[in-house]
This record gives sequence, structure tokens and C-alpha cells, in this order.
Amino acid sequence: MSKEVTYTGKYYQGTRADLVDKVSKQMSAKRLQHVLRVEEMALALAEIHGGEAEQVSVAALVHDYAKERPDNDFLERISQGAYPSDLSRFGNPIWHGLVGAELICDELAISDETILQAVRLHTTGAAEMSQVAKLIYVADYVETGRDFPLVEEARALAFKDLDEAVAFETEHTLNYLVTSRALIYPKTIETYNHWVVKK
Amino acid sequence: MSKEVTYTGKYYQGTRADLVDKVSKQMSAKRLQHVLRVEEMALALAEIHGGEAEQVSVAALVHDYAKERPDNDFLERISQGAYPSDLSRFGNPIWHGLVGAELICDELAISDETILQAVRLHTTGAAEMSQVAKLIYVADYVETGRDFPLVEEARALAFKDLDEAVAFETEHTLNYLVTSRALIYPKTIETYNHWVVKK
Repeated sequence: MSKEVTYTGKYYQGTRADLVDKVSKQMSAKRLQHVLRVEEMALALAEIHGGEAEQVSVAALVHDYAKERPDNDFLERISQGAYPSDLSRFGNPIWHGLVGAELICDELAISDETILQAVRLHTTGAAEMSQVAKLIYVADYVETGRDFPLVEEARALAFKDLDEAVAFETEHTLNYLVTSRALIYPKTIETYNHWVVKK
Repeated sequence: MSKEVTYTGKYYQGTRADLVDKVSKQMSAKRLQHVLRVEEMALALAEIHGGEAEQVSVAALVHDYAKERPDNDFLERISQGAYPSDLSRFGNPIWHGLVGAELICDELAISDETILQAVRLHTTGAAEMSQVAKLIYVADYVETGRDFPLVEEARALAFKDLDEAVAFETEHTLNYLVTSRALIYPKTIETYNHWVVKK
């Protein structure tokens, strides 16, 4: 990080260092580095496209908070909460965002709905996305540690046009899922129909 | 047709020739030939995989009954009926099956729910499909007039394993839609998640 964001207590009751410490206890050192790179990228994109640095920083730092939780932690909450009836079949890639937001709210006392919604949507996107949700969705895809065939094109697009970057990521993610015969969460299709389909 | 199916009145109050006549008045000569080829293919597949010839014949003959209706006929019914709220954006490819079933029921007095459901699902498939629905879905894709790169592979599969043919068609249709950046109806993803995704 070139410049660290100062926290005012608006979104998290503690310093940024406190939050990084809490997050680091939930994941491997490798994943923490990814999280810090997502924060750096999201802040860089926010400087260009707009977005409040403190809110973006908190959202980025917590986006993968629940990624390494055991399946049963999610399944228990899914069985008790108001979730789609077939959510249990979609696994960690969907749970760690959608149900992860609930854990972040409970365990970190972060209740800002824009941050929580950005976490919920960070692997699927949505038809309607806040600026923060777009920044996290895109930064997670193009942070400097990512390495896949089209990453440089995606990254250049992210700096140029955030909405186009949302569309690019959605299209290529869906393509990848279909080619891999992987489960597709219905929300991903809402995102695709809204952002990718030519009007 | 090598052998024409004799109608007993169980599904349609008239002869097969009467039904072909009614259907022919709704479409171009070219589309009628497609419809007759779907019937022929669906009956051939039913002989191998099972399926009552009379029910299969009626479902095949009516599957594209509403294909050439003007958009307003569909939009009027969508605004009055119990349809998904965003159905109006999906256009004729989805409407002619889903709403077309209603027209078939009203105008041809065909009320067999298996036939109507096969019509509703013939462009999207579904997680749960009757034997008739599978036969129409697959026959529509591999009838002898179809010509696309993988049609021979799809046709061979249809004769060998109907469920595998449903999966093949679903996977390649979804691939085509994503590659074309075309709208994807959510039901298509239910079909994909059920039939294509590896368990």
C-alpha cells in the first residue's frame, strides 16, 4: 500500500490495523496477501471512478473473511436463515459471500448495508450493484496477483471503464463455468443478462 | 412419415390430418416441414426409448404452433397471466413455448398437461422433464433438417441415450447463447445445473 486509509469508526469500531489483524486470524498468509491486494486495487480504482476510500477499504478487507470456514458453519446458518431453498448445493464459492456477510456482521460488528451487500455479491455480481460492489467485484478479478490469459485486458479495462470491466468479468466467468460444466448460481445469470447482453 | 399415427381422440378431438391442417394455417410452409420432421424424429426416438406415439405426435405437431404470432398476442397474455415478472423481456424464443401452450389449450382444445408442459419447455428444458418433454426437446434439436457443426454427434447421441442428448443439447445451447451474448432465460440454467453439471 502506498497510502494507508485512516479509519474514523464510521464502518468499523477500530483501526485498519485492528481489522487486518482480525481478518488475518481467519485465513492463510497467502489469502491475506490476496485480500490486501484486493484492497489496494479497489482503492486505486476508487480514485479514478469514485468511491469512499474508508468504505472501500473495509469492504475489500472483509470480502473473503469467511472463505476458509468449514462447510458446516455455512450449512447451519443456511438451514436457519432466509436463504434460497437450493443454496446448500452451491458450495463455498457462493456461501462465503452470501452467508459470509452474516458472519462479518455478527463477528466484526460491521453493519453498513453497502459493505455487506458488496461482500454478498462479490462472486456473482448482480443486476443492480453499488459503486462499492462494482469495485470489489472487479478488484477481486484483476488484483495484481491474478494470472490468467485475459487478466491484462481485464485490468486495463478496469482502469478505463468500471462498468465495462463488470461486463467483461461476468462474460468470461460465465464462459469459464459453462466450459468447466460447473454449477451456475442463478444470480450470475441476472448479472449476465443485465451487464453483458447487448441492448 | 413411414407410418402415420392414428388418433383416438384421447388428446385431440379430430384426426391427425385435421391437426396438421390447423397447425399449417399458423405458419409458413417451411416451418410446417420442420414441424413434421420433429414429429418424425420424436416418434423414431419414442420407438427406441419409450413414449406413447399418439401423445408424442400431438406434442410434436403443436410445439411451434405459436411461433409466428405477433409479439402483442404474447405481451397481452403475459400482462394478464401468472407469468414471471420479467418474462416480457425474453421475446419470442421463450414466449412461443411458455405462452404458446396457453394458445394451444384455448384454440385447439388440447388440455393434456404432459403435452402442454412439453411445449412450454421445448426451448429451455427443465430440471424435471417427462419422457414426452425430453423427446420434443431433443427432436427439435436433431430433426433431419437441422444443420450445425455438431448435429450429427447430437443425433447419434439421441438414438443412443436420450438423457445424454438432453445434456448435450443444453450444454451446447448455453455455450452458444453466452458466446452470442444473448439473453439467457433462468430456466435454462436450472436445466444446465441438473443435466450438465457433473455430480
